[in-house]
Amino acid sequence: MSHKLLGIDLGGTTIKFGILTLEGEVQEKWAIQTNILENGMHIVPDIVASIKHRLEMYGLSKDDFVGIGMGSPGAVDRTQNTVTGAFNLNWKDTQEVGSVIESELGIPFAIDNDANVAALGERWVGAGDNNPDVVFMTLGTGVGGGIIADGNLIHGVAGAGGEIGHMIVEPMNGFACTCGSYGCLETVASATGVVKVARLLAESYEGSSAIKAAIDNGEEVTSKDIFVAAEAGDTFADSVVEKVAFYLGLASANISNILNPDSLVIGGGVSAAGEFLRSRIERYFMTYTFPQVKASTKIKIAELGNDAGIIGAASLARQFIKE
Amino acid sequence: MSHKLLGIDLGGTTIKFGILTLEGEVQEKWAIQTNILENGMHIVPDIVASIKHRLEMYGLSKDDFVGIGMGSPGAVDRTQNTVTGAFNLNWKDTQEVGSVIESELGIPFAIDNDANVAALGERWVGAGDNNPDVVFMTLGTGVGGGIIADGNLIHGVAGAGGEIGHMIVEPMNGFACTCGSYGCLETVASATGVVKVARLLAESYEGSSAIKAAIDNGEEVTSKDIFVAAEAGDTFADSVVEKVAFYLGLASANISNILNPDSLVIGGGVSAAGEFLRSRIERYFMTYTFPQVKASTKIKIAELGNDAGIIGAASLARQFIKE
Repeated sequence: MSHKLLGIDLGGTTIKFGILTLEGEVQEKWAIQTNILENGMHIVPDIVASIKHRLEMYGLSKDDFVGIGMGSPGAVDRTQNTVTGAFNLNWKDTQEVGSVIESELGIPFAIDNDANVAALGERWVGAGDNNPDVVFMTLGTGVGGGIIADGNLIHGVAGAGGEIGHMIVEPMNGFACTCGSYGCLETVASATGVVKVARLLAESYEGSSAIKAAIDNGEEVTSKDIFVAAEAGDTFADSVVEKVAFYLGLASANISNILNPDSLVIGGGVSAAGEFLRSRIERYFMTYTFPQVKASTKIKIAELGNDAGIIGAASLARQFIKE
Repeated sequence: MSHKLLGIDLGGTTIKFGILTLEGEVQEKWAIQTNILENGMHIVPDIVASIKHRLEMYGLSKDDFVGIGMGSPGAVDRTQNTVTGAFNLNWKDTQEVGSVIESELGIPFAIDNDANVAALGERWVGAGDNNPDVVFMTLGTGVGGGIIADGNLIHGVAGAGGEIGHMIVEPMNGFACTCGSYGCLETVASATGVVKVARLLAESYEGSSAIKAAIDNGEEVTSKDIFVAAEAGDTFADSVVEKVAFYLGLASANISNILNPDSLVIGGGVSAAGEFLRSRIERYFMTYTFPQVKASTKIKIAELGNDAGIIGAASLARQFIKE
């Protein structure tokens, strides 16, 4: 009897695996290092070997699994189960992923983009409360996201749906973004974006501040340093957090004004600031939304942490459950 | 054999009706005035009487119809088939609509919000080319819209999905909106919004312009006057159109950066400016989108005009087609 799901979260540093119940409870999890040498040619064989090893260790066989789901960086082809242009894996050309895993393990396979998969995880058993309308925003090295509307993950016509990090929040004098635009949310709300905002504000700040002093001295300052200082009462750091919260609140409001999700869930490293950041984002969100949205859409902090990927990946495999 | 659809577009001035093939071709259409007297109590009986009269005239019976679809202003309950708070119909309290029409005519009935229904029409047989991902924006007295993503109309958790007019495009010094926010797209891109932009820019414009002179003289100026003057070479009017196009391009870009639709279709009275407006919106859209969206999402002018409502309404009834 098939009654388990297998989720794989493929990243540039580690590959995480999870064995889950059909209800989304993680029963086993493990991780291996990602070997990106030789154009990433070892990645798929390593995944197959690790799963075979673990199934044997746990006394499980392919018949125990409904399916395998996977989240991957790069451009994912959900029909062919291939990945193209995942540069942090050294996968420049199109890679066969699903066909290899399916034939080696004999278990049905599904794949999607890593940010979409994390969104599915938070929506299913995390902060999203399994609502059909949930938007997920992840603030890390970049700003990514995923949109679930009316129960469906929104991919868009070319698979670029959910790219919340490239919403324009500063149309006039924005920082240059890696995408080629100026003023993208990613340039002011990612870990490096927060520091960029601090450097800009430092130019005109005149009070005393350890963070400003560190910037002026050419020391390395991280977004975490800035949040810690702000919570400890550094007025300059506080003004940086306020500006970042403005951008995040404006973007969250505009997303919600058009999609009216049940919740907008914020995850990723920067969201470790927790309620200190969430409450400020919510204040701007309330300024920029109209009454029906104010009353129905909630701003939440993600709950699953690093497990969002394996859980969301596993949820992709629920499509193989037989009625 | 059921092989026709009936679409009803309920507005504050007229009620439009259409009889369509299952493929969306309008075979008959007519309209009656909306009688909003006595709390709008005549509206539903008038609709029933008009349909009965026409079916008799055309020699049709209930068995010719798969279903009836309707677009309505106000807050629509799609499960109960009721409408609440449609103030331009004098419907303050909840109105029974579907139950009356179904029992009087014996044909299955479905209803949705009027802007959503127009979006469905343009998506089905208009500029949207029946693609599963289409966003519709209507620029009229207000700015409304509808979002079809992954083949589904997006309603959101409280039915406020698609309210594109309340995206914030001027977060700092925006005009007050009827919704209570400041800087909504509706305040600068509706028919009255365009005039507001002109009044603001007139304060600092120093060249000669018939439009600026009319504003300064306290004469009534319409958005149409401004577009006509801009096309005829009035530099001031041109600067107003440019500013409106900036706001529309920014909003279109931010919608597309997160949803990546196949097309964003612009309709309503202001869109009568056609290619003159579209090409300018597209220029800002190209400035503010990232490469994958630039390459895949198109900005289009709506094609169905006033028929979008009856066609989209009729499309709601396609859910009753038996396989």
